[in-house]
Amino acid sequence: MKVERCLENPLLVPADVKPSRPDFKVDGIFNCGVAKYKGEIILLCRVAESVICENEDEVKIPVVIKKDGKDVLDIITYHKKECPELDFSDSRHVDRKSGKKSKVVNLTSLSHLRVARSTDGVHFTVEESPSILPISEEESWGMEDPRITQIGDVYYINYTSVTENGAGTSLISTKDFQTYERHGIIFAPENKDVTIFPEKIDGQYVAFNRPVPGGIGNPEMWIAKSPDLIHWGEQKHFCGLSNEDENGWDNGRIGGGAVPFKTEKGWVKIYHAADKNDRYCLGAFLLDADDPSKVLAKTAEPILQPETDYEKKGFFGNVVFTCGCLLKEDTVIIYYGAADDKICRVDIRLEDIFNAMK
Amino acid sequence: MKVERCLENPLLVPADVKPSRPDFKVDGIFNCGVAKYKGEIILLCRVAESVICENEDEVKIPVVIKKDGKDVLDIITYHKKECPELDFSDSRHVDRKSGKKSKVVNLTSLSHLRVARSTDGVHFTVEESPSILPISEEESWGMEDPRITQIGDVYYINYTSVTENGAGTSLISTKDFQTYERHGIIFAPENKDVTIFPEKIDGQYVAFNRPVPGGIGNPEMWIAKSPDLIHWGEQKHFCGLSNEDENGWDNGRIGGGAVPFKTEKGWVKIYHAADKNDRYCLGAFLLDADDPSKVLAKTAEPILQPETDYEKKGFFGNVVFTCGCLLKEDTVIIYYGAADDKICRVDIRLEDIFNAMK
Repeated sequence: MKVERCLENPLLVPADVKPSRPDFKVDGIFNCGVAKYKGEIILLCRVAESVICENEDEVKIPVVIKKDGKDVLDIITYHKKECPELDFSDSRHVDRKSGKKSKVVNLTSLSHLRVARSTDGVHFTVEESPSILPISEEESWGMEDPRITQIGDVYYINYTSVTENGAGTSLISTKDFQTYERHGIIFAPENKDVTIFPEKIDGQYVAFNRPVPGGIGNPEMWIAKSPDLIHWGEQKHFCGLSNEDENGWDNGRIGGGAVPFKTEKGWVKIYHAADKNDRYCLGAFLLDADDPSKVLAKTAEPILQPETDYEKKGFFGNVVFTCGCLLKEDTVIIYYGAADDKICRVDIRLEDIFNAMK
Repeated sequence: MKVERCLENPLLVPADVKPSRPDFKVDGIFNCGVAKYKGEIILLCRVAESVICENEDEVKIPVVIKKDGKDVLDIITYHKKECPELDFSDSRHVDRKSGKKSKVVNLTSLSHLRVARSTDGVHFTVEESPSILPISEEESWGMEDPRITQIGDVYYINYTSVTENGAGTSLISTKDFQTYERHGIIFAPENKDVTIFPEKIDGQYVAFNRPVPGGIGNPEMWIAKSPDLIHWGEQKHFCGLSNEDENGWDNGRIGGGAVPFKTEKGWVKIYHAADKNDRYCLGAFLLDADDPSKVLAKTAEPILQPETDYEKKGFFGNVVFTCGCLLKEDTVIIYYGAADDKICRVDIRLEDIFNAMK
């Protein structure tokens, strides 16, 4: 498959982002929702920040807490030597070494959402300060991986809302990317990678979602319906993993990817999958226009996989991960997170995607 | 606390149930939803059955599959010696010994729902055949732990719907316990122990649910809202576990229990919790009448715990687990599953429950 990575890649890197506080550093700008608004292309970016820490024996954790009725930032300091029960080896989280409770004790970074704007779709300016900050009640551990679905003049933003109680999905709406209305947690944890279709189908809204069951089952795609975008039901399993024993690119986890778009042949859904070594690639489904739970065709091989240096190396390497794309004439413009710390763009002709499907 | 276990306990045992097929045996009748209908007390029981297997080297697994467009029973036979990659040591399921995919490969039994009727609330007659059979699409691995919420003249039955893709919660309604209407999966896996309040509160239906997140988080109670009982959102974390290091009775998992009922003081919610050794007990919350996410009081100690022989020993011992209760004057009549294979009854005075709350 012919894919045209943007020559300016990566389009956005941590150095392009002003930290939200003087004691923070930006670890990543990645996994962005995509929208067109008043002649501009808007990326609503996940910005991950951590606390600047000079002392190697310490780990400082940023969380949002409620204090005197207000949401404030709290910093938890671990002195590694004094915490033999904890495992600090993963750059992304602090883990419990044993016990029946949740393994993850804290995330090392806190993510918020921030708007970047462009007129040409290549050169983006990141706003000086966060556009949407996490609140303690819904996402004390951060807001991750937003998707934007435009319905009429309203932009619906769903994102992973993380607390110590799990990673669920919340919904926010905006008409102007200035003021935002919250609609609460729409999917209980663990459920990420939600993508909402941009129109009602057979009288109802439809969304992919990716529960991760604690017991039976795997991280796979489900499809749900809603009368109002806020309350969801009629869940159906949509697509599973390939066989674990095979060296497939999608035998570890599979999830939502970009918001689906409509073509003459049906809905096109760019999704992501990871193998058992957590190498993330992108693929595509063609879905029935009237019943998107029906798969008409699917790409057998990834349409994008980590190949360049900026995709292979970063905060968490070997990752290409999309939350949104735009269709421009016969070309799909995919914005994607590379190695969990940068934003990149790749253009693929729609016809090439169709030709790669079986 | 003074609890009056019914002298006739256990009220129902596997021998009271006619298997649904000649090649099946009944492993348990337990965890029943409770309703009043036309002067009778109805228990909608979980009946777990397995395949009669004379050969100790074999394990036979019953599942529902789609064949030629129809749901039929399929029996998978494992020859233990030929499956070194599998673990058959747990009586409840067959497990994978290693690998990244879901550990559970199959359940050893298949559960359906069956009505039992009584005029005195003590002596029950179990119907000769299943009342609701699992269908392949929603619960190829069985239907478990039903709760019944009566709203007007409609009885809403939610239950755990299990497939190889996980244990979610589905909804069925009936007006007569003869014909049943399906409303699909209302909570994606893993989410069990759902209990729906019997009236709208502040304009919306409300339900407890108990997601089990695969990553961050623990098996704890959440509370959600719905306009129509079929689509749910506005999820909030409701109650967590006690500290793992303490010898608490609720430091392993906590879940829905019985459908809440209204009193002059507020909603009373009998719930269950297990410690880290999977010993299941019952407790009670008192919740604000207008906002049941607010806990007014809670029992510090269990109101019922496994003490008798029939609670300590069975298919899975040391379990008391309720899906429904009835309020009769000043007494709460709790029907509960004992040791995952029998149905029992205990009566507790409401005032005693209130007095045990802090």
